[in-house]
Amino acid sequence: MNKAAIIHTQENRHLYLVNSNRATVRIQTAVGDVTSIQLIHGDPYDWREGKWLSHESAMTLIGTDGTHDYWSTTIHLPHSRLRYAFKLSSNEHTLVFTERGFFNEQPAHISPYFCLPYAHDSEVFSPPDWVEQTVWYQIFPERFANGDESLNPAQTLPWESAEPKPDSFFGGDLEGIIQNLDYLETLGISGIYLTPIFKAFSNHKYDTIDYFELDPQFGDKQTLKKFVTACHERGIRVMLDAVFNHSGYYFAPFQDVLHNGASSKYADWFHPHEFPLNSSLAKPNYETFAFVGSMPKLNTTHPEVKNYLLKAARYWIEEFDIDGWRLDVANEVDHAFWREFRQAVKTVKQDVYILGEIWHQAGAWLQGDQFDAVMNYPLTDAIQDYVLKNKPVQEVQKSLSRHLFSYPHPVNKVQFNMLGSHDTARVLTVSDQNKNLVKLQYFLLFSFPGSPCIYYGDEIGMSGDNDPGCRACMIWDPERQDSDMYSFLQQLIGWKNQYKAFGNYDALTFYDSRHKDVLMYALSSSDETFVVLVNRSQQSAAVQLPHSFHSKPYKDLLVGQSQSQQTSSSELSVEPEAFKLLKF
Amino acid sequence: MNKAAIIHTQENRHLYLVNSNRATVRIQTAVGDVTSIQLIHGDPYDWREGKWLSHESAMTLIGTDGTHDYWSTTIHLPHSRLRYAFKLSSNEHTLVFTERGFFNEQPAHISPYFCLPYAHDSEVFSPPDWVEQTVWYQIFPERFANGDESLNPAQTLPWESAEPKPDSFFGGDLEGIIQNLDYLETLGISGIYLTPIFKAFSNHKYDTIDYFELDPQFGDKQTLKKFVTACHERGIRVMLDAVFNHSGYYFAPFQDVLHNGASSKYADWFHPHEFPLNSSLAKPNYETFAFVGSMPKLNTTHPEVKNYLLKAARYWIEEFDIDGWRLDVANEVDHAFWREFRQAVKTVKQDVYILGEIWHQAGAWLQGDQFDAVMNYPLTDAIQDYVLKNKPVQEVQKSLSRHLFSYPHPVNKVQFNMLGSHDTARVLTVSDQNKNLVKLQYFLLFSFPGSPCIYYGDEIGMSGDNDPGCRACMIWDPERQDSDMYSFLQQLIGWKNQYKAFGNYDALTFYDSRHKDVLMYALSSSDETFVVLVNRSQQSAAVQLPHSFHSKPYKDLLVGQSQSQQTSSSELSVEPEAFKLLKF
Repeated sequence: MNKAAIIHTQENRHLYLVNSNRATVRIQTAVGDVTSIQLIHGDPYDWREGKWLSHESAMTLIGTDGTHDYWSTTIHLPHSRLRYAFKLSSNEHTLVFTERGFFNEQPAHISPYFCLPYAHDSEVFSPPDWVEQTVWYQIFPERFANGDESLNPAQTLPWESAEPKPDSFFGGDLEGIIQNLDYLETLGISGIYLTPIFKAFSNHKYDTIDYFELDPQFGDKQTLKKFVTACHERGIRVMLDAVFNHSGYYFAPFQDVLHNGASSKYADWFHPHEFPLNSSLAKPNYETFAFVGSMPKLNTTHPEVKNYLLKAARYWIEEFDIDGWRLDVANEVDHAFWREFRQAVKTVKQDVYILGEIWHQAGAWLQGDQFDAVMNYPLTDAIQDYVLKNKPVQEVQKSLSRHLFSYPHPVNKVQFNMLGSHDTARVLTVSDQNKNLVKLQYFLLFSFPGSPCIYYGDEIGMSGDNDPGCRACMIWDPERQDSDMYSFLQQLIGWKNQYKAFGNYDALTFYDSRHKDVLMYALSSSDETFVVLVNRSQQSAAVQLPHSFHSKPYKDLLVGQSQSQQTSSSELSVEPEAFKLLKF
Repeated sequence: MNKAAIIHTQENRHLYLVNSNRATVRIQTAVGDVTSIQLIHGDPYDWREGKWLSHESAMTLIGTDGTHDYWSTTIHLPHSRLRYAFKLSSNEHTLVFTERGFFNEQPAHISPYFCLPYAHDSEVFSPPDWVEQTVWYQIFPERFANGDESLNPAQTLPWESAEPKPDSFFGGDLEGIIQNLDYLETLGISGIYLTPIFKAFSNHKYDTIDYFELDPQFGDKQTLKKFVTACHERGIRVMLDAVFNHSGYYFAPFQDVLHNGASSKYADWFHPHEFPLNSSLAKPNYETFAFVGSMPKLNTTHPEVKNYLLKAARYWIEEFDIDGWRLDVANEVDHAFWREFRQAVKTVKQDVYILGEIWHQAGAWLQGDQFDAVMNYPLTDAIQDYVLKNKPVQEVQKSLSRHLFSYPHPVNKVQFNMLGSHDTARVLTVSDQNKNLVKLQYFLLFSFPGSPCIYYGDEIGMSGDNDPGCRACMIWDPERQDSDMYSFLQQLIGWKNQYKAFGNYDALTFYDSRHKDVLMYALSSSDETFVVLVNRSQQSAAVQLPHSFHSKPYKDLLVGQSQSQQTSSSELSVEPEAFKLLKF
């Protein structure tokens, strides 16, 4: 047995609570090395005649990433406590793996066992119920629709009159969004995520001047109330974007420090290295976001700063009934701040969604005490590696597995999944204008667990390179909108709404399609099972269904709900750059 | 290369901050598999001409546990941010290991790299400075000395007149400790840890009745003040013991729930399953410590309970200036409570020591936001496996390595190390009355990092089996005290005070003694290096010094400070059941 390859940590990817009486335990072993695993488990205080009472539960092989096999089991904890070890069998022998290494036999004494000392209700990861069935639509407010020209900032350009530049203004506003809610409702989305709308200097508003004021170019607070109410009437949630890592250059406290130096009463609100502050250095003499002098890092351990920011976090919920906060550069703010943040906002509105901007593995923020989700860029990358970068299909399956197993399944179910954002080139652009491949990517995105997001304009075939290109004005001329793409996304949303296993499945199984371009997997919930076939190539692909699906009836969802056919043959043809979604 | 055996997690055993500009990164590889590792690292925002600027630092092989090799490096973070990957070389090839698996070449794009997004000052593990040089003495107050007979509870037995029973009383009190501070000062200890002294029913007082009152059998608050002041005048710190996991049966709020059931205003202070509560069931119908009906589990998420307990935690510091809290059954209380606890007590006294009773791996509590240390029973077990259980020496080295590498080194330096406590049999008893072996164990304990603790009476050769045996009355008759053991512990304390590397070394290296009973290792700090040789057997053992110590001068600390000899021969003889401490 490859003992050194056996991995079980106390990270949530290996141990998480389902509730205070159920826990999921996972372990990794070298691929193909171990043939079966029993979880030995019991309550630490359950003894009879000097002997600890333990039980055994078989673990299930739930997937592989090519390096490791992943095993899982979910067990009942009658008294919310657990000590456990793993009895691993290979063809050669059986070993017991504990916190203190390996034993040939199950240890009699309890000391070496792994420990989950107490399953507290308060430590169960508990995202809002509504998220896993939500489909988001991300709006960059300056560029979606100009509904009130009286608010146009100086130098506002006529809509679509120019390519967007870092400092251009086109006058998009809240009223513009309100006027187009029918459009969004028809598309079928159920959540709107707005990049920042608070008073700021730039067009992107990530440089906040006042956390309690709307930027006047977007409208007044009355308009925001009208917007949220109109959304809620349509069953659409609203998520705003907050920048608590740093302020803008014109944030009054920072201006005070710029002018008054060490004597400013706000000096401790930031992280000065020396005075006077000099924002024009290549590396400013105070802490900043990246090395951007106009984005001074806030001292989120300072009680006044915390009070100010948490008050703002509560304010927009209390006064405007928003449903979520997306948190910019969330990984660079201290964990203690986010724990207080969670407490503060959940106290005001229990089912508010907390989404952190984190691009890397983020398990440490997703333990139930901080965020409900992060922006799932690694999933984007895995999808694009398959569809656009010709990565071998088996490697894609491994990457997807590694990524999905890096989180508890309840976390995956509420992740914020997207193919692009205001921070990336648009999916149509990275796909070299190939709309078929865009469809494949959105299809894949919707099939994986989480709440998918459509970046404004993707649904009508907009292209655009990295910032500022991806922030172009929304195209409202029906002649220039790709209605086919719009209908396609409507269909995906319909499937997501109709089928739990399409997206938030209970189990995902990858199969070897035996075709170098076809990705094949099954998604199953208690009610239904789908087989998914995706062909990224420009040729039709003939593939075999997995053996366990031979001779079973299914519906091909692309051919229509009414059609049901028997698979007399198990061979199927997948069109070029197309997919099949088969419901069993 | 054994890719599946390469382990790096975001747990503190693999990644920890030294300060906001220095981080230690560790990785595990299969034993003997990898020949060198370079850490590739850089600031995520440090780019030039479209290329990320990264650096390479060689990692050092710091030990092995027989399954894995451990590698480490500490790097400078000029801007408190870090992305990193590992370039691993074996005899066959070189691979780059990232958050997203393996690459043949260093990835150009930053996405796959591991991330330490920001090194916050507030997230640096920061125990009190004084702990790593403290030697503790644990007192079970009912059994140390009876200094005020007027406080004797009913049925108090004459001192030492009987074997201790679970319900016997002998009248030990605070005045008794005060009267014997000279004795303790002469021994040389610098901290006293008292098991609980608050009002309770039992003799052990782990069943608190009132968290704000002393148990009258121990004295009044004036006496406690006198005790703490007297200790501080002698440079001795005082640590008390708090039981926040559960209350005692006679805690007034629990009595209220017992009598008033669901209508009690304290019903939510506990975890009732149904009413009326029934404490006499084998498994009570409310949550308890273990299944002990007289120890009802407190609801530490309830605001009133939190306020009450945190007020108590602050009270004994504010009013009595105590220096530490030992926290009973600390692993079964929720993390959020302990985070608030740390904030509360550190606000009152910045350098208070927080010690959790946790018997298993406790990395999750030792990240800087909860405890400073835990009771290091796994170290006890490793020492006893070697000295008492004849575990093969190489296995002992592996266990010790695995244990020490399961924590950051700054954590190890303040761990609370002991050979026994009120919860175990005494070391002399588990050593079958062999005093030589007791000495070896205390010597080993003092040589490892952390703050060692002597359990009252061990220093004079007391024996005693598991509770209640280990809680016998302290023997004060000089004729019956083992003065040799007392002197030996004085010497260990002296060495600990005099030599930083004896105990809180910077590096530990195990060597193969080529003798089945001799454990050999070197301890080094910037100033000095020790070679330690321990022989558990009943025969003299001839061993070779490690090659790198051949022909170097050293002092044998047991032979005396004045003697310095040249190692013309590198062979040494270690007496039966004895050790050598050689200072190079």
